[in-house]
Amino acid sequence: MEVRARAPGKIILTGEHAVVHGSTAVATSIDLYTYVFVHFSTPSDDGDLLTLQLKDTALEFSWPISRIKAAFPESVLSCTPTSCSVEVAKIIAALVEELDIPEAKIGIASGVSAFLWLYSSIQGFKPATVVVNSELPLGSGLGSSAAFCVALASALLAYTDSVSLDLSHQGWLSFTEKDLELVNKWAFEGEKIIHGKPSGIDNTVSSYGNIISFKSGNITRTKSTLTLKMLITNTKVGRNTKALVAGVGERMLRHPEIMAFVFSAVDSISKELTSILKSPTPDELSLTEKEEKIEELMEMNQGLLQSMGVSHATIETVLRTTLKYKLASKLTGAGGGGCVLTLLPTCILFIYLLSGTIVDKVIAELESCGFQCFIAGIGGGGVEVNFAMSS
Amino acid sequence: MEVRARAPGKIILTGEHAVVHGSTAVATSIDLYTYVFVHFSTPSDDGDLLTLQLKDTALEFSWPISRIKAAFPESVLSCTPTSCSVEVAKIIAALVEELDIPEAKIGIASGVSAFLWLYSSIQGFKPATVVVNSELPLGSGLGSSAAFCVALASALLAYTDSVSLDLSHQGWLSFTEKDLELVNKWAFEGEKIIHGKPSGIDNTVSSYGNIISFKSGNITRTKSTLTLKMLITNTKVGRNTKALVAGVGERMLRHPEIMAFVFSAVDSISKELTSILKSPTPDELSLTEKEEKIEELMEMNQGLLQSMGVSHATIETVLRTTLKYKLASKLTGAGGGGCVLTLLPTCILFIYLLSGTIVDKVIAELESCGFQCFIAGIGGGGVEVNFAMSS
Repeated sequence: MEVRARAPGKIILTGEHAVVHGSTAVATSIDLYTYVFVHFSTPSDDGDLLTLQLKDTALEFSWPISRIKAAFPESVLSCTPTSCSVEVAKIIAALVEELDIPEAKIGIASGVSAFLWLYSSIQGFKPATVVVNSELPLGSGLGSSAAFCVALASALLAYTDSVSLDLSHQGWLSFTEKDLELVNKWAFEGEKIIHGKPSGIDNTVSSYGNIISFKSGNITRTKSTLTLKMLITNTKVGRNTKALVAGVGERMLRHPEIMAFVFSAVDSISKELTSILKSPTPDELSLTEKEEKIEELMEMNQGLLQSMGVSHATIETVLRTTLKYKLASKLTGAGGGGCVLTLLPTCILFIYLLSGTIVDKVIAELESCGFQCFIAGIGGGGVEVNFAMSS
Repeated sequence: MEVRARAPGKIILTGEHAVVHGSTAVATSIDLYTYVFVHFSTPSDDGDLLTLQLKDTALEFSWPISRIKAAFPESVLSCTPTSCSVEVAKIIAALVEELDIPEAKIGIASGVSAFLWLYSSIQGFKPATVVVNSELPLGSGLGSSAAFCVALASALLAYTDSVSLDLSHQGWLSFTEKDLELVNKWAFEGEKIIHGKPSGIDNTVSSYGNIISFKSGNITRTKSTLTLKMLITNTKVGRNTKALVAGVGERMLRHPEIMAFVFSAVDSISKELTSILKSPTPDELSLTEKEEKIEELMEMNQGLLQSMGVSHATIETVLRTTLKYKLASKLTGAGGGGCVLTLLPTCILFIYLLSGTIVDKVIAELESCGFQCFIAGIGGGGVEVNFAMSS
């Protein structure tokens, strides 16, 4: 039995930081995926292994099933998503500690913990090989850990009775709404092991895809009528999200009146963006007008993020570079480095398809600064599984 | 008889563009001056000249007094500031047209017109040599034309009965409040000839010095308790102020709710800045805290200006450069090029006085981009005259 799952990454289109202070934020899926392939072996009497291959970091871990069985006092197998208890977390931590993960790659340890929790909770002590590879850079705010948890939970749930999938289907297959809810909840449990107190936005976007607005803990899903493409530039500068969030909070305390207006402006931007994204597009002219409005909203949101003090010299470099080509950009996520979004309007993309000039030039210039560029479609579907594809 | 006058330039600290939409803006004088020297010759029967030397553009113009007398149907000499009539404007235009100003320097033509109007209105047909030189770059939003009009009006009024100055005073001498009002009104008439519909802010700051808040046409003068220094970077990119103002207006029409919050945030910034600038500073610690708050206000205002869409690639370059040295910057004036302000906090200035390192490095880096840098104190006094100094 084998199954492959792919779950998309996410970007925050508008409202990062302001969302902490009650404004609306808008996130969307990107068509860059994390893939999880699971091959279940037939259990034998001895020598059964659970193997995890992380292709992107070139790491492989194997546990004898007997070792895992011995570690856990009792099976944690569960039909409904449950949180990892402190006791089990300690057992998992001990198993991960034994692995001798190289210091430079220690960041993946929490992902391995989440893997062990999700695997043993959904599949128990079955032997298998799990292969993970991803188009998403790690720790850059593109939701790579959530995409991993969502793809993993999906692949593990695919052959269980908890979900109803057509196993004979050829090609990528979506879950039903009810099944997605289950995937999303399991993925959130994985995210909790990785991040402590995640917002739940990343796994929700990765599970359901499309566009998600969130305000004061409430999530609203929206389907976009536009197929927009973004240039995503990874500055590769690591961010301290907690410090950045705290910095905005302190600025709010120092200048409450100014910041309240700034957050209100961001809230209005998110609302206007959602309304543009979901309104029907009758003709080409209207598409261009919408794109111009979205560019303006991105530019305005970026200005407001700079008002909050979360920009960074590398972000400024990306802005300056794309501005030269009359392209609108904004940071996405926590700021202070991380990723920058640049809308690639349809007219530019049309030229790109013909000759590639503008987009190629921008990318070449950004890459010469040491940045990493991706082109991604936004607002597409969520997690999918495939029973026909081998790894 | 000879007199020298010097009038300061100005910068807008906060609120540019938003002021057009009802927010408060704050402007202040800078200790960079335009100097006007007037030497009145004794009238003779023939060969009397009125000469204007513009040192910065290396231009000199001379009119036989008889030519001016012949041009004007009657003397325009006036004790109170009056506007140039359409008829007289035509006469002046004809006189200026005869001058054959080189095409590359045609921008100064309106300044020569203002000179002819102010001279003939305040001094009539007296022969004299007027020498002008300035530390302010022309057309960069630093109020060079207003400083010219204010210095010129002051020097021309100095020996008239309209003002009461102690002619025996050695060194720079200030006007009384009442006399400043007269100088300011005359300078405004000059500004009208140069700019058509000036706001009156530039000549008011140049006349009175200190800090000026303005909102919906109302001007409030404030004295600063801080002696702050700014690095002013002239990007040398010419701006189209009208187009930039119109662009913000159009954005306001497209996104009224968002922009209303943006303008409100700017209004709060201007109010908070004024309150910081005028509050007493008891100790060193408090000064540092104030400077940090001012830096934050500048950074926030810059972000909001970017939200309005009035930034420019060269402005971004300055921001990125100063950000590297942890210095806060914002554009000043219309944006789209023009000048950028960078606060030089006292602690940095202290190091500068000792070793020069940080400020020298920033300036060297900015100048290597082709920009022009000035260091200016802000909030100092207004126009002054000097009877003892020869040119």
